[in-house]
Amino acid sequence: MKQVGIGLIGTGFMGKCHAMAYGAVKAVFGDVPTPQLEILCSIDAENARRSAENFGFERWTTDWRDVVNDPGVHIVSITAPNSLHREITEAVAKAGKVVYCEKPLALTLADGIAMAQAVREAGVASLTGYNYLRNPALAYAKKLIQDGAIGQVIQFRGIYDEDYMADPDLAYTWRCRTEDAGTGALGDLSVHLISVAHYLIDEIVQVMGDIKTVHTQRPDPENNGQPGTVENEDQANALIRFRNGVHGVIGTSRVAWGRKSYMCWEVHGSTGMIAFDQERMNELRIYRNRGDVADQGFKTILTNTAHPPYGQFTPAPGHGLGFNDLKVIEVAHLLRGFEGRETLYPNMDDALHIERVIHGIVSSSQQGAWLTIGD
Amino acid sequence: MKQVGIGLIGTGFMGKCHAMAYGAVKAVFGDVPTPQLEILCSIDAENARRSAENFGFERWTTDWRDVVNDPGVHIVSITAPNSLHREITEAVAKAGKVVYCEKPLALTLADGIAMAQAVREAGVASLTGYNYLRNPALAYAKKLIQDGAIGQVIQFRGIYDEDYMADPDLAYTWRCRTEDAGTGALGDLSVHLISVAHYLIDEIVQVMGDIKTVHTQRPDPENNGQPGTVENEDQANALIRFRNGVHGVIGTSRVAWGRKSYMCWEVHGSTGMIAFDQERMNELRIYRNRGDVADQGFKTILTNTAHPPYGQFTPAPGHGLGFNDLKVIEVAHLLRGFEGRETLYPNMDDALHIERVIHGIVSSSQQGAWLTIGD
Amino acid sequence: MKQVGIGLIGTGFMGKCHAMAYGAVKAVFGDVPTPQLEILCSIDAENARRSAENFGFERWTTDWRDVVNDPGVHIVSITAPNSLHREITEAVAKAGKVVYCEKPLALTLADGIAMAQAVREAGVASLTGYNYLRNPALAYAKKLIQDGAIGQVIQFRGIYDEDYMADPDLAYTWRCRTEDAGTGALGDLSVHLISVAHYLIDEIVQVMGDIKTVHTQRPDPENNGQPGTVENEDQANALIRFRNGVHGVIGTSRVAWGRKSYMCWEVHGSTGMIAFDQERMNELRIYRNRGDVADQGFKTILTNTAHPPYGQFTPAPGHGLGFNDLKVIEVAHLLRGFEGRETLYPNMDDALHIERVIHGIVSSSQQGAWLTIGD
Amino acid sequence: MKQVGIGLIGTGFMGKCHAMAYGAVKAVFGDVPTPQLEILCSIDAENARRSAENFGFERWTTDWRDVVNDPGVHIVSITAPNSLHREITEAVAKAGKVVYCEKPLALTLADGIAMAQAVREAGVASLTGYNYLRNPALAYAKKLIQDGAIGQVIQFRGIYDEDYMADPDLAYTWRCRTEDAGTGALGDLSVHLISVAHYLIDEIVQVMGDIKTVHTQRPDPENNGQPGTVENEDQANALIRFRNGVHGVIGTSRVAWGRKSYMCWEVHGSTGMIAFDQERMNELRIYRNRGDVADQGFKTILTNTAHPPYGQFTPAPGHGLGFNDLKVIEVAHLLRGFEGRETLYPNMDDALHIERVIHGIVSSSQQGAWLTIGD
Repeated sequence: MKQVGIGLIGTGFMGKCHAMAYGAVKAVFGDVPTPQLEILCSIDAENARRSAENFGFERWTTDWRDVVNDPGVHIVSITAPNSLHREITEAVAKAGKVVYCEKPLALTLADGIAMAQAVREAGVASLTGYNYLRNPALAYAKKLIQDGAIGQVIQFRGIYDEDYMADPDLAYTWRCRTEDAGTGALGDLSVHLISVAHYLIDEIVQVMGDIKTVHTQRPDPENNGQPGTVENEDQANALIRFRNGVHGVIGTSRVAWGRKSYMCWEVHGSTGMIAFDQERMNELRIYRNRGDVADQGFKTILTNTAHPPYGQFTPAPGHGLGFNDLKVIEVAHLLRGFEGRETLYPNMDDALHIERVIHGIVSSSQQGAWLTIGD
Repeated sequence: MKQVGIGLIGTGFMGKCHAMAYGAVKAVFGDVPTPQLEILCSIDAENARRSAENFGFERWTTDWRDVVNDPGVHIVSITAPNSLHREITEAVAKAGKVVYCEKPLALTLADGIAMAQAVREAGVASLTGYNYLRNPALAYAKKLIQDGAIGQVIQFRGIYDEDYMADPDLAYTWRCRTEDAGTGALGDLSVHLISVAHYLIDEIVQVMGDIKTVHTQRPDPENNGQPGTVENEDQANALIRFRNGVHGVIGTSRVAWGRKSYMCWEVHGSTGMIAFDQERMNELRIYRNRGDVADQGFKTILTNTAHPPYGQFTPAPGHGLGFNDLKVIEVAHLLRGFEGRETLYPNMDDALHIERVIHGIVSSSQQGAWLTIGD
Repeated sequence: MKQVGIGLIGTGFMGKCHAMAYGAVKAVFGDVPTPQLEILCSIDAENARRSAENFGFERWTTDWRDVVNDPGVHIVSITAPNSLHREITEAVAKAGKVVYCEKPLALTLADGIAMAQAVREAGVASLTGYNYLRNPALAYAKKLIQDGAIGQVIQFRGIYDEDYMADPDLAYTWRCRTEDAGTGALGDLSVHLISVAHYLIDEIVQVMGDIKTVHTQRPDPENNGQPGTVENEDQANALIRFRNGVHGVIGTSRVAWGRKSYMCWEVHGSTGMIAFDQERMNELRIYRNRGDVADQGFKTILTNTAHPPYGQFTPAPGHGLGFNDLKVIEVAHLLRGFEGRETLYPNMDDALHIERVIHGIVSSSQQGAWLTIGD
Repeated sequence: MKQVGIGLIGTGFMGKCHAMAYGAVKAVFGDVPTPQLEILCSIDAENARRSAENFGFERWTTDWRDVVNDPGVHIVSITAPNSLHREITEAVAKAGKVVYCEKPLALTLADGIAMAQAVREAGVASLTGYNYLRNPALAYAKKLIQDGAIGQVIQFRGIYDEDYMADPDLAYTWRCRTEDAGTGALGDLSVHLISVAHYLIDEIVQVMGDIKTVHTQRPDPENNGQPGTVENEDQANALIRFRNGVHGVIGTSRVAWGRKSYMCWEVHGSTGMIAFDQERMNELRIYRNRGDVADQGFKTILTNTAHPPYGQFTPAPGHGLGFNDLKVIEVAHLLRGFEGRETLYPNMDDALHIERVIHGIVSSSQQGAWLTIGD
């Protein structure tokens, strides 16, 4: 197996998640190279030092360019703030290294396009962090659909709601500003839902959105608690149409009290239905019009060793994976892709299409008209 | 209490439901007049005779005009095919009697407008059959919203799916033709969801729809099994906006395998959320941002005597009402309205607004543009 | 069809339930005689008069013997306090009329034995009120078991919990005294669970119980709020063995906060499992070890027209029956039994065996030893 | 922080689980020493070599004594077959090292007693692998109970069912023999449930069990498929009483189709109830008799950062931990215990009491009488 040196930029929520995945992937999967944790970057020196120790990295820095330029680094995990994604990605690509970037790509579509182009032109491999795609339950859903278990797909419906900004009294922060955060719920949450829709159904090619900021002002602690105007959407709903002709609808909110990771979707087929809820991520529900009507109902399948790669984590069925385990699966894919054994998905181009959709939802909402997703 | 003579037109699914409700209402509620079951109509004489015997009606006929003109009849239950609703309603109104008409009003918006006008001009009372509105759980949801239990309402989302036409091989029938059935899933199912939205939130004033017939042809038994073209929608999704500024989204399908009475809605508020699923009609779910974060979660309330009029059916909490019980509550309301003790809701005008919404969804879908619901 | 005159003794919770069922049964089922509601009895005259009016009875009385002796009465519904069941039952039997008695039979086993004997000797038909047995979901469960859908039955587990006495500060009443109420949770709740176990599996022939009164004293309003000693059990658990060799366990509590009608059971089989919860009485869950392991899971079946007699209530699947609907099904059975078209079950003897089990649980608990249920 | 050298004996299901936990604990928790993965043992050399590489151990061996005697090893993870637990534990204790042994302790109570004694006499620290105890949901349940959130505890009910031996045609193996496996479902599953009961309520001091082998014979592949007689129990139910006077009941099956990790328990209190199901391990359900009756219901809490140590895994609420994460928490406890910062629980003595209960259930079942758990 090839030597694989890892650089990590960012040590927050997702940075730690990446680090844990690198640390676990060899024990879990075995058939991947052992990631060499070379260097990580945090802008705070003490945090960088401590994170390096905790995560098992050899070196640390406060300048992300050190990570990019480190000769021992082959793959760069980009978990820095979204506003830095473009600059870092372009640097990593230019350095000829693998770009492993968390979603969303960037604050603006233009930046996303530039990033995808940089990666394409540099000819480097890339993977974007859509870890919900790694759920064995989702892989099984896709297999079921492909095998015709629910016949011809006729509709997709999805929701991704959370409540991390549901409190109207929550402080005004960078998250509220387009310049710093880009879109709101769309970039944070909808992109995941769209990634699932693309994975399961087909590319979304037309959208008609309706976005709304419901908590329009929040107290700004940097301005004596005076109200700051929230610039991006709290909620977004959109009618959608797929390339294969299927219609659907998606909705997202970051102000939905009680929802913690409520990515809920259902695929309607001509002979059945598949449904899923990320808050119960080890369950997949399927209904088939098969056999006696008296005996039909939604079946709740607990993921198990028959749903790869569940069995890599435990041979015991229904014992349950967690959020962080999905990242381990993603990193295994990354490493196999690095060795040329698998084709990385979703790469920058795939991710770009996801972001075209969310920006299309914003535009269609502003125009009050259907919009065709461009290339 | 006043004497209340009842006439019933139609003895099918909803006709029987009305009959059962008339038979039960006095025992359940006590404080209503005893309905006098005068005369019912079915176009089939033998069925009419048998139904009169089973349902406890004094007389029967095969001509609905006999019901309308029967001097003992004060209230006419109209459960005939939708295509007859207009003619019958106009006759009942003209006869100065109370119109109790099942949803939807009519096949076309024009007919609906005419019906509402006839009732208005005749000055008769009217009630439309939106029995899901009678659920004690719904009444409690409305109370909670009004009492501010979830703060300011910020979004409404709803689905009403069933699978009664999910089988693509199901025969081509009158249900597939606009002339005979009007709209498809919208008129059958969405109207219920809209009735709930109007009841809980406010009137819907703008819509942007996307309707689709997914099983475009069905074998026509009256044409040697040759394919007949389905004229109305199997699915409908719509972005919606309420008069009070709240945005939302609704979706409906009659081809959603596994869904039997899946009217699912959620009301997002600034301090909480309320959610409901008609397939578990005795449960209401509420989340409040209150107290310790460690202790927050969706609470599932089983309806009980604290949710009137549940206690009229049983003093035992959580023992459960059924679909037909909701009609009994509706009929109690009808009888109290007849006595002038309650204001009938939704009357023809209220129902007309619901139908303006579904026809607005069709129009906006055809035009691909937002549409403002007219008066 | 035969003329069937009905007498009703008691107009409380279950009296009203009987009355509603008599009023609905003909409309719902059609193929039964129309019950003639002759006379009802309540010890309070005004209540008797009003109940007769509301329930549609011809006459009323405050003396239950008037009901028994009324020449127009063929069937007597006994919903009076349990302490009166024996005396009334013996009178009805002696009068040669059908005994339709709510569970439990009596306060003591001796009384129950006497009642069963009286009915047997009089040669009259009898039916006991175990309405949960009437659930179409249960009938389907039995059919599945009989058809071998879960292979050989290997275990039964059941719980019936409610919280009607969960508040320790609730007043001391007749319910707390053995003399007035007999057993506690066992007689109120466990009997239902045992009725289901007998229906689905076989007769219980051995028990090893553990009963407990957890709120041993309650304030007695008739004694200036001084503590009164609760004499019967709040909780009961029991290991059980069936005649066919299956083992199991049951538990019951009347002090289980949050449980409203939580009769939950599961039947384990050699190839599958069936599970049920009365609080979601329109759902049955089944797991089969069949087909691909990847595709196995518990299926939730919503009752529908394929589960007779659901379709008598509505042709719409999954729309849901309620608690009172089960009584309508029971009364239809009663009437068909009256006409000799069906064999009444559970009759007094069947009910007696249920009560032998609960009294066996008490005895085995007191003795701390297994007890064989006698005949 | 102290240097902590780890030795691992066994590389199967639980061996890998230990290895993953050692690999993750520093990244997840930070405030623990970094475990030095010194040496592991597998009886198969190739497996040992590969496991050492995958899990990141420095050395490997096929003789477990090498692990025990390795001078760099301070803690020995014992995940070897249960039949070896005693011998290894005694050796580890004798070597003065920390014993970290998977449940159950041993095949016989005598062996368990000997192990606990060996550890006690050697004065070494010990921890037993009861990872379900590490669930943040459980810690919160305990806190709620201690804080009086459900008043006084009045009952405990629990089930732990799986279906790993549910297929009657499954081969006869060592698991079926008392000599090789000890008890059946009790030792595999019940011990977990009892660990929870001890943790939440108090020690169980009296039991009355009923155990049963339902699939009494299985085809023995080592004997030409001839039937081998299963010697240990498939099912076990038991009435239980706690030291503090609370009564309860527990049940376990290894032949319960559809159950994958169905450790379900409920704690009844005088003012509320708490319920849990391991198959939905990130949810805790609580009912409180508080406030308006109309507003009472079971609340489903999704674990989050307010339930330590959930936040060590992710700051995002409701995103979910998995089975393996619980082991990471256990190992963090082990390491803190090693440093003297926490008292290890459950140690060998605590585990011994758990095993006294399961052996008590066997004895009481054989004797058909209540049994007091001895010391």
